[in-house]
Amino acid sequence: MAIKNAFYAQSGGVTAVINASACGVIQTARKHTDKIGKVFAGRNGIIGALKEELIDTSLESDDAIAALLHTPGGAFGSCRYKLKNISENQREYERLIEVFRAHDIGYFFYNGGGDSQDTAYKVSQIGEKMGYPITCIGVPKTVDNDLPFTDCCPGFGSVAKYIATSTLEASLDIKSMCETSTKVFILEVMGRHAGWIAASGGLAGQGEGQPPHIILFPEIPFNREKFLERVDQCVKDYGYCVVVASEGAQYEDGRFVADAGAKDAFGHTQLGGVAPALANMVKQALGHKYHWAVADYLQRAARHIASATDVEQAYTVGKAAVEMALAGKQALMPTIVREQAKPYRWSIGEANLSEVANQEKKMPIHYITDDGFGITQDCRDYLQPLIEGESFPPFENGLPKVAHLKNQLVEKKLRTDFKL
Amino acid sequence: MAIKNAFYAQSGGVTAVINASACGVIQTARKHTDKIGKVFAGRNGIIGALKEELIDTSLESDDAIAALLHTPGGAFGSCRYKLKNISENQREYERLIEVFRAHDIGYFFYNGGGDSQDTAYKVSQIGEKMGYPITCIGVPKTVDNDLPFTDCCPGFGSVAKYIATSTLEASLDIKSMCETSTKVFILEVMGRHAGWIAASGGLAGQGEGQPPHIILFPEIPFNREKFLERVDQCVKDYGYCVVVASEGAQYEDGRFVADAGAKDAFGHTQLGGVAPALANMVKQALGHKYHWAVADYLQRAARHIASATDVEQAYTVGKAAVEMALAGKQALMPTIVREQAKPYRWSIGEANLSEVANQEKKMPIHYITDDGFGITQDCRDYLQPLIEGESFPPFENGLPKVAHLKNQLVEKKLRTDFKL
Repeated sequence: MAIKNAFYAQSGGVTAVINASACGVIQTARKHTDKIGKVFAGRNGIIGALKEELIDTSLESDDAIAALLHTPGGAFGSCRYKLKNISENQREYERLIEVFRAHDIGYFFYNGGGDSQDTAYKVSQIGEKMGYPITCIGVPKTVDNDLPFTDCCPGFGSVAKYIATSTLEASLDIKSMCETSTKVFILEVMGRHAGWIAASGGLAGQGEGQPPHIILFPEIPFNREKFLERVDQCVKDYGYCVVVASEGAQYEDGRFVADAGAKDAFGHTQLGGVAPALANMVKQALGHKYHWAVADYLQRAARHIASATDVEQAYTVGKAAVEMALAGKQALMPTIVREQAKPYRWSIGEANLSEVANQEKKMPIHYITDDGFGITQDCRDYLQPLIEGESFPPFENGLPKVAHLKNQLVEKKLRTDFKL
Repeated sequence: MAIKNAFYAQSGGVTAVINASACGVIQTARKHTDKIGKVFAGRNGIIGALKEELIDTSLESDDAIAALLHTPGGAFGSCRYKLKNISENQREYERLIEVFRAHDIGYFFYNGGGDSQDTAYKVSQIGEKMGYPITCIGVPKTVDNDLPFTDCCPGFGSVAKYIATSTLEASLDIKSMCETSTKVFILEVMGRHAGWIAASGGLAGQGEGQPPHIILFPEIPFNREKFLERVDQCVKDYGYCVVVASEGAQYEDGRFVADAGAKDAFGHTQLGGVAPALANMVKQALGHKYHWAVADYLQRAARHIASATDVEQAYTVGKAAVEMALAGKQALMPTIVREQAKPYRWSIGEANLSEVANQEKKMPIHYITDDGFGITQDCRDYLQPLIEGESFPPFENGLPKVAHLKNQLVEKKLRTDFKL
């Protein structure tokens, strides 16, 4: 088998641990110099391939690559860019082949969520359909935890740990102040279509009266009256009420709660946010003093409170992707298989990219309590191992140390530019 | 000297380390049983004294008290309640004396910010003015870092570390996505009157182009045009722009930026938030894709990323307060004295409560760069040691372990209830 170079790219929204997968890919490739030459990373994902902007990771020291294990964000740049079908946009695929051929690329590792696995699958077809054989392996990643076939998605466990921790901590704050101050606290979390992240807030407490008292899932239609009634009851019973709300919380008719139709002083539509919208309802209807927080990117970048389980899984899917490629496999994605619940044991499985692409795994309905406001024991049992273990980054001058890469581009070999 | 009991209470907005001060007070008192009997903690601050709701901390195990060192929030409950002057509301002071006498309380430790030190000072006067001698020592605490005489305030260093870390982490996220996605990110932080917390975001980066690119301080009048111009320039120069904004950012005329005058679909005034207001400006004027986060209580509850320096200082002011009381001192507050900048060395000093009360320390103007959007080297030198060192809590099942107190109330001895 001739030595071929590899292309690796990061795609879609980044996570606290996507660079751990990059670390797994690159470190493993470095152990197989008999088969893999250089690993070129796409500058800003697949766009880097299209524009022939390839980062030469061979110029990075072993230490720099090792530091990726504790660096959040996407070290080579990521993108939101979806390839069309080969039949719809042959030009893009021709360009990819041109770039791959120019740089002797025989492996394609694509690190992302559902859309990205779709891209990886399409690229895998160019061998058969366009005569450029390339080994394509997807590397799973998404904070949304919505990929099928895999027990969980690298990236999710760390967000879950961050949200559970933040909910626990903030709840202690509210509880201690509720006699004379804030009585209702609302934390808005990510999850436009699936409530996995909101569910993880539920790990902060367990049993009667423990916060969070209310979780709002996109899967359960939002009912304003029922919500306000529950908030008020919590304030009466416990003195305060903590709410964890998915950004995707929506009414029965599909309207997002965040889309409150607010206008600013100039009549411009005001930016959404489910937390302020809910807070406004509480204020208008109940008059309780409230506070709200929107974690936004902080939650998916919070490498400082990453789950050790998640970091390990993220690294391992990167490593497994390279090993699968070296074993001659094609158009697969390594998955996480839950071998045993307690104590938690997992292994690496495989899924076909053709089946992974464009599927979304929602929360099973039996993970949500009958009243729609909480998580069941089954859900706890599922989530619990994913947040376990701490993997603190090294610190320097009081701040997390992060990787500093050269990110030097390979000299272009093509004479043509490519317009996206 | 007869053995007297002590009263300790938490006041005002809580912090990630106020319980470390409680730990310092109680552990130190437990070492001096020849002088201090029991430590009674006010349930919900001074209200606990007025309502004769006294928590008997002697019923808590040494382990439970030690766990306060890593438990955020106010373990005994806090309150926002300001005593009037003795001349204005003698009834409250008479009630305090009644409760103190009934429970043989001879020491008063009050843990809070400016308003709380004012309360402590007023209570110290009841010996002279109303014939009930009691030793009063304030214990400083505030995330706002606005107490005079002390180099910094316990509680601030941990928020600063959280905000600097979060800014660093989120900036890596934005940077990696900005080619095709979010270009402007705005993080709203606490600080209604002083920009200390916003300033700490500046520690995330240093030098040309490093985020945060813009910091908005309450001390610097907000200029919409100048702000938008700078945002646009950053996007042009660096591809993205990270903004850290004080909730107290305001126009020249004193209007808060957060008070955008937005109305919801029903014409109700929409809840503020400086981050969404700024994002709206960016959207309207520049059209850049934006995201925003509001850390709110997460920042002051984030014990998981507390500064070790802050935890130690919080503990030490609690300990020092008890030692001052035992040394026969009166109406003082222990302060943090910066003995040396590099390497950082600090010691405990003293300030008179009569002088501390109701003063607010703003950021010195030479801590802010001439353009009003950043921090100077002097500011960095001041802030840097305050975020240094990590003091991770123990974890259990993937979450921080927190103290679980019995919080059992002492049997009431008075026959009268007190209406607040």
